[in-house]
Amino acid sequence: MSTAATYLDNNGTTALDSRVLEAMLPYLAQQQGNAMSRHVYGRAARQAIDHAREQVADAVGAHPSQVVFTSGGTEANNLAIQGIIGRHSQNQIAVSAIEHPCVTRPAIAMQRCGWKLASIGVNEAGKVENSQLDAILANDTSLVSVMLANNETGVIQDVAGIAETARRHGAYMHTDAVQALGKIKVDFAALNVHAMTLSSHKINGPQGAGALVLDKRVDIQPVLYGGGQEKGLRSGTENVAAIVGFGAASELVSRELLQRTATVRKMRDQLEQGLQDLGAVIFGNTVERVPNTSFFAFPDMDGETLVMALDRKGYAVASGSACSSDSTEPSHVLLAMGVDADLAKGAVRVSLGTANTAEQIASFLLVLESELVRLKRLTALAV
Amino acid sequence: MSTAATYLDNNGTTALDSRVLEAMLPYLAQQQGNAMSRHVYGRAARQAIDHAREQVADAVGAHPSQVVFTSGGTEANNLAIQGIIGRHSQNQIAVSAIEHPCVTRPAIAMQRCGWKLASIGVNEAGKVENSQLDAILANDTSLVSVMLANNETGVIQDVAGIAETARRHGAYMHTDAVQALGKIKVDFAALNVHAMTLSSHKINGPQGAGALVLDKRVDIQPVLYGGGQEKGLRSGTENVAAIVGFGAASELVSRELLQRTATVRKMRDQLEQGLQDLGAVIFGNTVERVPNTSFFAFPDMDGETLVMALDRKGYAVASGSACSSDSTEPSHVLLAMGVDADLAKGAVRVSLGTANTAEQIASFLLVLESELVRLKRLTALAV
Repeated sequence: MSTAATYLDNNGTTALDSRVLEAMLPYLAQQQGNAMSRHVYGRAARQAIDHAREQVADAVGAHPSQVVFTSGGTEANNLAIQGIIGRHSQNQIAVSAIEHPCVTRPAIAMQRCGWKLASIGVNEAGKVENSQLDAILANDTSLVSVMLANNETGVIQDVAGIAETARRHGAYMHTDAVQALGKIKVDFAALNVHAMTLSSHKINGPQGAGALVLDKRVDIQPVLYGGGQEKGLRSGTENVAAIVGFGAASELVSRELLQRTATVRKMRDQLEQGLQDLGAVIFGNTVERVPNTSFFAFPDMDGETLVMALDRKGYAVASGSACSSDSTEPSHVLLAMGVDADLAKGAVRVSLGTANTAEQIASFLLVLESELVRLKRLTALAV
Repeated sequence: MSTAATYLDNNGTTALDSRVLEAMLPYLAQQQGNAMSRHVYGRAARQAIDHAREQVADAVGAHPSQVVFTSGGTEANNLAIQGIIGRHSQNQIAVSAIEHPCVTRPAIAMQRCGWKLASIGVNEAGKVENSQLDAILANDTSLVSVMLANNETGVIQDVAGIAETARRHGAYMHTDAVQALGKIKVDFAALNVHAMTLSSHKINGPQGAGALVLDKRVDIQPVLYGGGQEKGLRSGTENVAAIVGFGAASELVSRELLQRTATVRKMRDQLEQGLQDLGAVIFGNTVERVPNTSFFAFPDMDGETLVMALDRKGYAVASGSACSSDSTEPSHVLLAMGVDADLAKGAVRVSLGTANTAEQIASFLLVLESELVRLKRLTALAV
């Protein structure tokens, strides 16, 4: 655990805010109850969860009764996809070509049950082409899922516009807002979606908590069955400390969003100026992105190799999405954007947090430059 | 959170052991990585998870590669039921009549998909009647699920014997061992099951972690799809701190089981002597039970009323299972045992932990006696 490396992978996971940990500690250090129990310990746990539910709802312009707590973003996305589809007869699901695997793969799994899966393409800049939607939704469609901000490029989608089209065709609209919360203003009502996924550990909250924010009129069934927690939509003993932490982290987002975004945006600009000076191609930078993310490549430079070299020099960055980093395939997001596969294999992601500093960015750029020189020399020798 | 009530509901949830919290804290207080990331933070998270996997495996006589981490017992039971059934063509699932809802309800849900659900009865003492099994399994059956220890009565089932019968009929055998771990020796290999569910927060570990221990030859599919964590069987960013805590709690079970069981057994004997002196009926006490659990009723005394009265006096006990305590129906476990519905409505559960003391039991018995007198007087006045 002891390492002094500079952490530049905040889209992978974030450090727990010390104020969040402080809020969680009583629920870890003292006897706590099962929130389903009726005694004083159980009631205290229930109250803590209800308070967190208000904090999460407040952070995204929703009503507390719309918040269904889950074990994380992956579970919330699975609940949205599997839960809605489970209530409908087989027709079509439409998801964008740049979704996280925890949206795409449950949708793929539903194909076994007779569902058709339509992929909504993106343009060169990484934005979902709303213009395609009318043609896709000409087929009877139960559910459209398009993420609010992409985990790799940071590109922000016109979810409200897509939701309008989806609703016009009678489809439910879901958005994975995991990478948007804490980086841009997220407003459930304004997005006009039926369901929206959130995750705690991407906003300096603990791992192990997430939520599906849900219009209560949506016909949906649970994925996990049991004791009937979360109004029957998510059974299982509530992880009280994690939910309390998620609530506290959400409240901090509500209070500090503008300050956070200004801080990381300034560093991202500094970073990207340096990257461009070094000859990097920066993906998605012609459209609106979340302010902390930079996804880039250097021609003829393998991304994995660069990530490993930077790791040895004390900089923790990602190559594509951490959540699918077992794979050596080029990023599906970049391929969907029409990026050449060779260039896509060079992709490196830097995602900043408020704990980063301008000095770290300056040092990172210097190390990056020297590593690029060193690696190019090695490649030249090998050829 | 501040309450001085005596906690007697350890089958509902347990207090986090301070040594477990100590093991978890570095993973909460310092920057941690996403375990799927390849940089130094990601590798540290991965190593922590792998260590915990060994600790959990060691505690139950399994191989680390057989441990699939989940968000808890409910998810592990759902994975066993839904995951195995999802790979088989519709025939029959057989589950005991006294399973937790997180086994029964996913099985019920599968009926919508054409599965038959057979209920395996129990005798008056609460033991599954293995003799019924041959008749039930005469119908082609994919999966048998019988819990190792019941959450309400504490009665221990002959899982190894049932597994032998299940295997003879070509069925997979699953056991929910959530209420057994930490209370009796649990040995995956000796039980001869294909899959076994564990939960962290029942063994003084944190909420938010559990496991399905799984024979790798079992044909099973995931319930949650996504980034492919846990060899593809459980996608979603790993809750590193909770998994570390689950591992630490499991290691403590390995080291301290005999001492723990002796401690709680002595107090349980003290408690039940007092309960019998007060005229209680104790359920399941003619057969082998886990040593911390006492499930009892007083004739003509409502269980909910008694639980509320004891809560006001500073004793946290349960009426039936906390996980279904939204319900006012009598315990399905007691009804399956043939207990009269009126007596079943009187059921109260005391489940002890090592933090309890003989003094607490003595005080509890005194308060119980005076509350029984008071409540009977109130009832007499009301009639």
